[in-house]
Amino acid sequence: MPETPSLARIDAELLNQLMEKVSEFGSTGDGGVDRPVLTDAHKAARDWFRAELTARGYSVLVDAIGNLFGRIDLAGPDAPLVMIGSHLDSQPKGGRFDGAYGVMAALAAVESFRKGTEAPRCNYVIADWMNEEGARFQPSLLGSSVFAGLVDLDWALARRDRDGKSVGEELVRTGYKGTDAAPTPDLYLEIHIEGDSKMETAGARIAPFLRHWGALKVRIEVTGEQNHTGPTPMEDRKDAVLGAAHIIAEVRRLADVAEDTLFTSVARVDISPNSPNIVPGKAILFCELRAPEQAMLDWSEASLRAALPDLAARARTTAEIVSVDRRPAGKFDPRLAMLTERVADDFGLPKMQLDTIGGHDAVAVNAILPALVIAVPSVGGVIHRNDEYTSPEDLAAGGDVLTDMVRRIDRAGGDLDLALGANA
Amino acid sequence: MPETPSLARIDAELLNQLMEKVSEFGSTGDGGVDRPVLTDAHKAARDWFRAELTARGYSVLVDAIGNLFGRIDLAGPDAPLVMIGSHLDSQPKGGRFDGAYGVMAALAAVESFRKGTEAPRCNYVIADWMNEEGARFQPSLLGSSVFAGLVDLDWALARRDRDGKSVGEELVRTGYKGTDAAPTPDLYLEIHIEGDSKMETAGARIAPFLRHWGALKVRIEVTGEQNHTGPTPMEDRKDAVLGAAHIIAEVRRLADVAEDTLFTSVARVDISPNSPNIVPGKAILFCELRAPEQAMLDWSEASLRAALPDLAARARTTAEIVSVDRRPAGKFDPRLAMLTERVADDFGLPKMQLDTIGGHDAVAVNAILPALVIAVPSVGGVIHRNDEYTSPEDLAAGGDVLTDMVRRIDRAGGDLDLALGANA
Repeated sequence: MPETPSLARIDAELLNQLMEKVSEFGSTGDGGVDRPVLTDAHKAARDWFRAELTARGYSVLVDAIGNLFGRIDLAGPDAPLVMIGSHLDSQPKGGRFDGAYGVMAALAAVESFRKGTEAPRCNYVIADWMNEEGARFQPSLLGSSVFAGLVDLDWALARRDRDGKSVGEELVRTGYKGTDAAPTPDLYLEIHIEGDSKMETAGARIAPFLRHWGALKVRIEVTGEQNHTGPTPMEDRKDAVLGAAHIIAEVRRLADVAEDTLFTSVARVDISPNSPNIVPGKAILFCELRAPEQAMLDWSEASLRAALPDLAARARTTAEIVSVDRRPAGKFDPRLAMLTERVADDFGLPKMQLDTIGGHDAVAVNAILPALVIAVPSVGGVIHRNDEYTSPEDLAAGGDVLTDMVRRIDRAGGDLDLALGANA
Repeated sequence: MPETPSLARIDAELLNQLMEKVSEFGSTGDGGVDRPVLTDAHKAARDWFRAELTARGYSVLVDAIGNLFGRIDLAGPDAPLVMIGSHLDSQPKGGRFDGAYGVMAALAAVESFRKGTEAPRCNYVIADWMNEEGARFQPSLLGSSVFAGLVDLDWALARRDRDGKSVGEELVRTGYKGTDAAPTPDLYLEIHIEGDSKMETAGARIAPFLRHWGALKVRIEVTGEQNHTGPTPMEDRKDAVLGAAHIIAEVRRLADVAEDTLFTSVARVDISPNSPNIVPGKAILFCELRAPEQAMLDWSEASLRAALPDLAARARTTAEIVSVDRRPAGKFDPRLAMLTERVADDFGLPKMQLDTIGGHDAVAVNAILPALVIAVPSVGGVIHRNDEYTSPEDLAAGGDVLTDMVRRIDRAGGDLDLALGANA
């Protein structure tokens, strides 16, 4: 399909340069990055990005939960405000595309668009959300959830990592305990690698996420009794790890029963004292239940609650659900999704429609604004791992779609209905 | 039963003072101590004990694996050498009696004996073995195993904790990388709290351990694939923690099948990356199989090896046994055990015979010397926990038995057959 001449494209060289630079921070030397939130590596990446924003004429804002914003007013103080972003934190030993691509593409898209435009009609803000990943501090999407009013600021600041350090303390330490008011945008766009292989399998290069799955993050505490693994008679043992093992197997069984309508995991287990010759007295399980439908989430939670006492008792332990973080299932803005597909068609890029099962900052922001995540493929569906990979061509194709969406939204003065109608 | 006037008794006040003092190092404030080997707390305890030995006229020796010895020659250079000891390291958040009692009682017994004796016929050495517990560095009994020639020195020095620090490095850091030759004693005695409630149940106050159970310490590595817990389809997940859960349940099942002839545990699991929203790529299980008979150890190891592939495959993972530390089952010196019982009778202390399932330094030393562990009761059988407790009366009763055993062995010039015959 021939390219429409009026389409705006991203400066692919700028995008590449930004991606290469940001990948240096926390680089593990094997293609991955180890840049958990508010670590020195994360601070270094943010410091660099902040300088990059300033050098390009953006005003830098940091709010009370440490979200970093770069705002550029191209159309006067009363113009609509378009926010584009993602996050610079990574999983421990994670990949270099997850999050960073969305932030780099946001900056490159706005830079590319403004250079080719004489009379912009919108203002723009690039967002780097604090703690999207939730690896070091739970829950994930913390900065965007405070932004969207879903989570209380003081509660968020008081979250602690496994060493007892709080978000608030680490924000101060890294220099990101800000005092600026967050911007109040009119819509939010985020571009991200897929994290599954559906696009690769289908040969698609662009996909809007139509729905976001709901999730229950359930923390289960198993309590046994600390004792010597030698002399303590087997029948007297109250082994918290054994109790945990029965629960882990059951959590998986729930997903097997529900087939493709429920995803489950127990991916972190904190064992105390975790010494080879002490019967463990305590195990804390970080369990996730994810489903596209609330009814399935309810069923899985009820099933787990019903099963826990017997599972724990098989190891003479007790199990208690100590917290549940609930992320409801929902839909992204359908106009933004439609616009994505139309632009993809105009670029001749194969497209498909997807749901997102993983969380994204756009899920939180979507609670208060029209929002969307646009996906590009990830080779083999790999995510959260050093060998996560998306080719420069796919990064640029996604960047092109984002940039032309910016152009159409800008031309429509931020009116999405108009944007859908305004462009041939 | 009336007390035999000639029995030697421990200075109970000295023993109490020593126990109170040593319990300060690494005190957790709730009765327990947190004094893992070669930590600052452990170094402080050793530094104090070393000064205490020196002040009392003992020569201090530290060998190449960091065993600390206090030697006092009471009977000339060619006299038999009696070694008594235990260890000052504790489990993380462990109790204050395990190990420390044996070292304090050793010093108090020799001090009490020598003050009441005009012409000692033996020399004495108090031993504080390096890394009995094996909580920070595996395997346990490391210093005594090097002493007994069961483990290579260089290999022992190269063991690393979970932060990557080696035994050798931490010996240097704490000032216990010695250059002295270890003493060459003729026999070895150790007194220890029981770690089970058999004595309490039976009303016994003294028990020699006749046998030591064998143990296999098996390290199992489960390998899956690191991925996002959100989008990764359930059927594609290779979840190392789920594989671990199936193995943990099976390890317990082996003990249930074998009833009281096999004790098993998986007490430590190192999970990577242990992040709530990453399917874990790796889990290392620290598994123990303990039995009084070698045939049972062989059966349990063979059963586990046979079961591993299927258990791991249920989670689409693989499992590999990466190391096995083998501690053979065996018997302590029966003459020392008989002497213990005879002395207990003379003190009118109710006695019984036990096996030890947990490891003790005497198990390693027993490979090359006549050796014995004497047990005193522990309330509720608690061990490796802050509320581990033995009353001052029971500590003193054990100390009395130890001291009078020293007297009888000394009077017999270190000849155990003679010691058994020589005293009415």
